[in-house]
Amino acid sequence: MKVGLIGLGSMGVGIAHNILRAGHSLTVFNRSKEKAAPLLAEGAAWADSPRALAAGQDAVLTMVADDNALQAVTLGEDGLLAGLAQNAVHISMSTVSQALVASLAAAHARHGSGLVSAPVFGRPDAAAAGKLFVAAAGKPAHIDQVRPVLEAVGQKLFEVGDQPEQAAVVKLIGNFLISCVIEGLGEGAALAEKTGVAPEKLMEVLTGTIFGAPVYQIYGKLITTGGYKNPGFALPLGAKDNRLVLQAAEAHNVPLPFASVVRDRFVRGMAQGLAGADWSAIASLAREDAGLNN
Amino acid sequence: MKVGLIGLGSMGVGIAHNILRAGHSLTVFNRSKEKAAPLLAEGAAWADSPRALAAGQDAVLTMVADDNALQAVTLGEDGLLAGLAQNAVHISMSTVSQALVASLAAAHARHGSGLVSAPVFGRPDAAAAGKLFVAAAGKPAHIDQVRPVLEAVGQKLFEVGDQPEQAAVVKLIGNFLISCVIEGLGEGAALAEKTGVAPEKLMEVLTGTIFGAPVYQIYGKLITTGGYKNPGFALPLGAKDNRLVLQAAEAHNVPLPFASVVRDRFVRGMAQGLAGADWSAIASLAREDAGLNN
Amino acid sequence: MKVGLIGLGSMGVGIAHNILRAGHSLTVFNRSKEKAAPLLAEGAAWADSPRALAAGQDAVLTMVADDNALQAVTLGEDGLLAGLAQNAVHISMSTVSQALVASLAAAHARHGSGLVSAPVFGRPDAAAAGKLFVAAAGKPAHIDQVRPVLEAVGQKLFEVGDQPEQAAVVKLIGNFLISCVIEGLGEGAALAEKTGVAPEKLMEVLTGTIFGAPVYQIYGKLITTGGYKNPGFALPLGAKDNRLVLQAAEAHNVPLPFASVVRDRFVRGMAQGLAGADWSAIASLAREDAGLNN
Amino acid sequence: MKVGLIGLGSMGVGIAHNILRAGHSLTVFNRSKEKAAPLLAEGAAWADSPRALAAGQDAVLTMVADDNALQAVTLGEDGLLAGLAQNAVHISMSTVSQALVASLAAAHARHGSGLVSAPVFGRPDAAAAGKLFVAAAGKPAHIDQVRPVLEAVGQKLFEVGDQPEQAAVVKLIGNFLISCVIEGLGEGAALAEKTGVAPEKLMEVLTGTIFGAPVYQIYGKLITTGGYKNPGFALPLGAKDNRLVLQAAEAHNVPLPFASVVRDRFVRGMAQGLAGADWSAIASLAREDAGLNN
Repeated sequence: MKVGLIGLGSMGVGIAHNILRAGHSLTVFNRSKEKAAPLLAEGAAWADSPRALAAGQDAVLTMVADDNALQAVTLGEDGLLAGLAQNAVHISMSTVSQALVASLAAAHARHGSGLVSAPVFGRPDAAAAGKLFVAAAGKPAHIDQVRPVLEAVGQKLFEVGDQPEQAAVVKLIGNFLISCVIEGLGEGAALAEKTGVAPEKLMEVLTGTIFGAPVYQIYGKLITTGGYKNPGFALPLGAKDNRLVLQAAEAHNVPLPFASVVRDRFVRGMAQGLAGADWSAIASLAREDAGLNN
Repeated sequence: MKVGLIGLGSMGVGIAHNILRAGHSLTVFNRSKEKAAPLLAEGAAWADSPRALAAGQDAVLTMVADDNALQAVTLGEDGLLAGLAQNAVHISMSTVSQALVASLAAAHARHGSGLVSAPVFGRPDAAAAGKLFVAAAGKPAHIDQVRPVLEAVGQKLFEVGDQPEQAAVVKLIGNFLISCVIEGLGEGAALAEKTGVAPEKLMEVLTGTIFGAPVYQIYGKLITTGGYKNPGFALPLGAKDNRLVLQAAEAHNVPLPFASVVRDRFVRGMAQGLAGADWSAIASLAREDAGLNN
Repeated sequence: MKVGLIGLGSMGVGIAHNILRAGHSLTVFNRSKEKAAPLLAEGAAWADSPRALAAGQDAVLTMVADDNALQAVTLGEDGLLAGLAQNAVHISMSTVSQALVASLAAAHARHGSGLVSAPVFGRPDAAAAGKLFVAAAGKPAHIDQVRPVLEAVGQKLFEVGDQPEQAAVVKLIGNFLISCVIEGLGEGAALAEKTGVAPEKLMEVLTGTIFGAPVYQIYGKLITTGGYKNPGFALPLGAKDNRLVLQAAEAHNVPLPFASVVRDRFVRGMAQGLAGADWSAIASLAREDAGLNN
Repeated sequence: MKVGLIGLGSMGVGIAHNILRAGHSLTVFNRSKEKAAPLLAEGAAWADSPRALAAGQDAVLTMVADDNALQAVTLGEDGLLAGLAQNAVHISMSTVSQALVASLAAAHARHGSGLVSAPVFGRPDAAAAGKLFVAAAGKPAHIDQVRPVLEAVGQKLFEVGDQPEQAAVVKLIGNFLISCVIEGLGEGAALAEKTGVAPEKLMEVLTGTIFGAPVYQIYGKLITTGGYKNPGFALPLGAKDNRLVLQAAEAHNVPLPFASVVRDRFVRGMAQGLAGADWSAIASLAREDAGLNN
């Protein structure tokens, strides 16, 4: 297939490599061209704008930072929609708002093209290894059309619905549940510590019994080792996804009391100087509340 | 070893069988004797009181309903302590309060005997199969003394500290984190459903990615299939454990905002007629809050 | 003074009458002209657009529904700013977002005119009687310039700062604290009722002791008499103001745990069919949670 | 009437003076006799134990620290019940648990005497001035019997029910609502401060409009002036009353989400060194959460 890819951050670069490896033709665009060099060396082409990139592609994949970036590369005079063929499909992999996905879906419908929302679970190392999990939603014909691309970048593809915004919400729920794991572990670790039980010991018990999932292993380690000080996924991004899930839930009239508690943690983290830390740093606030020094 | 066991509920019976299978001598006591019949047929002996049972044993294991029951079988004129040899060890497997464990530890110390708090993770089927996870705390010498018993009933033994109440707290934290999974999944499933994504599909995505642990599989299924209507672990017991973890946390001055949210759910569940349901029924309150019919 | 007034809802009409009574020249604009008839009979003039209305006025007062309405009547080709003299002042009395007030303040500064944000406390009967409380913020010179108008509509004027958005936030905090009174009284009344104490009796004790303020009298009565079923201030408007205070607080990195609890109430109220009730209807959710029939 | 009074703390002393002033015969008991000196000088008699004090009285009033103290002076060999005449009435003015009041009511019923639960609203200065508010519950005949005493100590008497525990709950709800005012003002003041509005200015607006009640005036001042550092009503006592209202609410299956939030504040306050401050010090935690220095 002829594939365009916009957004060469740490996730996008890994995805791009796997598209090339799967034998597809690839054209890339990024705000700064330097990031593209290794891909161009492997045979990718460069385009000077989203619009120029989109022309002639079967599929255009976007992996950009947030709602604003996705809107900017999709709409407007130089946006991908202006260049996209009517029978082509836009694969949006960013974690963005339900509302934006719904509005882009409408724009594609008017244009005659398709939108598949396909947010991913996994960090940059998984992207590089082609081991992402992909949750896709869109018209079945559109998903079928880009299935080879989705399969090239992920180890597993979940088809969650025929409206693109459904995948956006599933992704937001996933991130919401990760934030719940972080908060729960933070509270539990603080109690363990004040009881004289090493938090590492608590994590060993948890992950050695019925909590034996990567989400507990990864975040249990970040919390107990202080690893949260280095931003794998920065706290403001966690705060943003929390905001997005609360907005989506409000649009559907669904109260999320746990998300509200987590929201207060993120806002406090921003106020107390944790903007440069990982989102798991909210666990340090539970320690602080318990009178433990950070 | 010569082992006594008090409490033949669904957990205790399974544990008793595995002690017998491991070749230990076993004497049992229960409020109603009928439950003991199959064990007596396999060679267990019967005692008419905790005190009578305790006499001459190397270890006495208790698996009873709650604080009141544990206090009743341990202390008082007919309690096990009155009959226990000074070098014997009491293994307490019930999920009870930190405060009670601390006070029983002191009583044993005065008596010259030992207390190992060894609460377990797992349901009756795991108890029957000897596949429980055991989190034990107590003086290392005491744990060593009863290690064969602990290993007979569990697939894995975690030694979490040298003060018995530490294991009590670890168990309470474990149940607290399960309640957080239930609440989080309940909220997430309600949002998925109102977005038009089947909750089963959401669970498939979650457990197929980084949430692939038994706790998500078990409770995800109870929540999405309505299985919560049958009390595997009844809601009032969940409410009790929530109360105990909040009490332990208060004793150590540790705020647990998530436990507070869950507390309000349990209290509401009791008010709204869910006392006969599984503790995972609190997930149905998140659906109700979203205007979905239950 | 020559005064223009945009927005003849139940609040705006009362305000307009008091401006006329104070002897000012008044021109009005409203989406539907019928509302203006009584005022025109008393000597007010009519303008066909916000822009036409603004021309030649010393002050233009807006009292419209929300952010969208305020933006629409202020900016754009037919907006009041297009017609406003450079030395005139815009008095904005609506409860709107901090962000919009800040952006309108900047627009006025570019235009050479002034903005005084002057939200009010009080219901339509207070507006009709000229008994509103006015919290104003803006440059002191601008406030001085429109003081006669502010004093004509209110019984008391509070000057809270020199940046217009400060009054917007003070008003949002006021509404937030009212929502806290509603939630607290709802919880307390539910507990009283289940204890066998009539909620009216509870309110009598509260307002007869240290809670003797209008906010407890008004909302205590709405809650205990079922008066919340009639929308004095409709629940969606309460939900909107809750959203605005959370947004303002997030912009300043201030967690508001109470506002988060109230948020969940409003979202649930929307889901459970209370959109047509008064915002104090969230108190009925506390009753429902306690298993009391509504 | 012949009246006994147990408990000469800052509240009890004021109450005792007013009983004397009203012309009743008064006998007092306190753990340390020094506190009684001024009263004895005014004509009060001294008794060496609650039991001795109770003998021959028409009414015995208790004003002691907490559940333990009330239980100790009421029950047991030297308790007041042992000395009380069958037709006499015990007036309990302490803020204690619903459960204890219910159990003392039963003990009095068995004894043939009466119990009137009559907790008060007001601080020591109000007690000294006879300006307390009294919320009483008990059998109407019992209340009538001690009405002269209740009227001697308070400016207003509210009769809230015929079961003594009802007054206990009303008092706990009152303290719960005060704690809600503190938390709400703490959050609002933090937001005002970060917006550049002086918290004092916010309080002026609030108490000058619909929040014009003593509870806002008193706590608004404590919060904005740092007065919360001096314990008028110490934080651990606030934490205790919060615990009692949550227990009463749990006994009646009433969730209290606001009380849960406040609970987390008190626990955190205990952990972070605020045990020596006023209970309004929890407002300083809202400031801290917003990144403001305390």
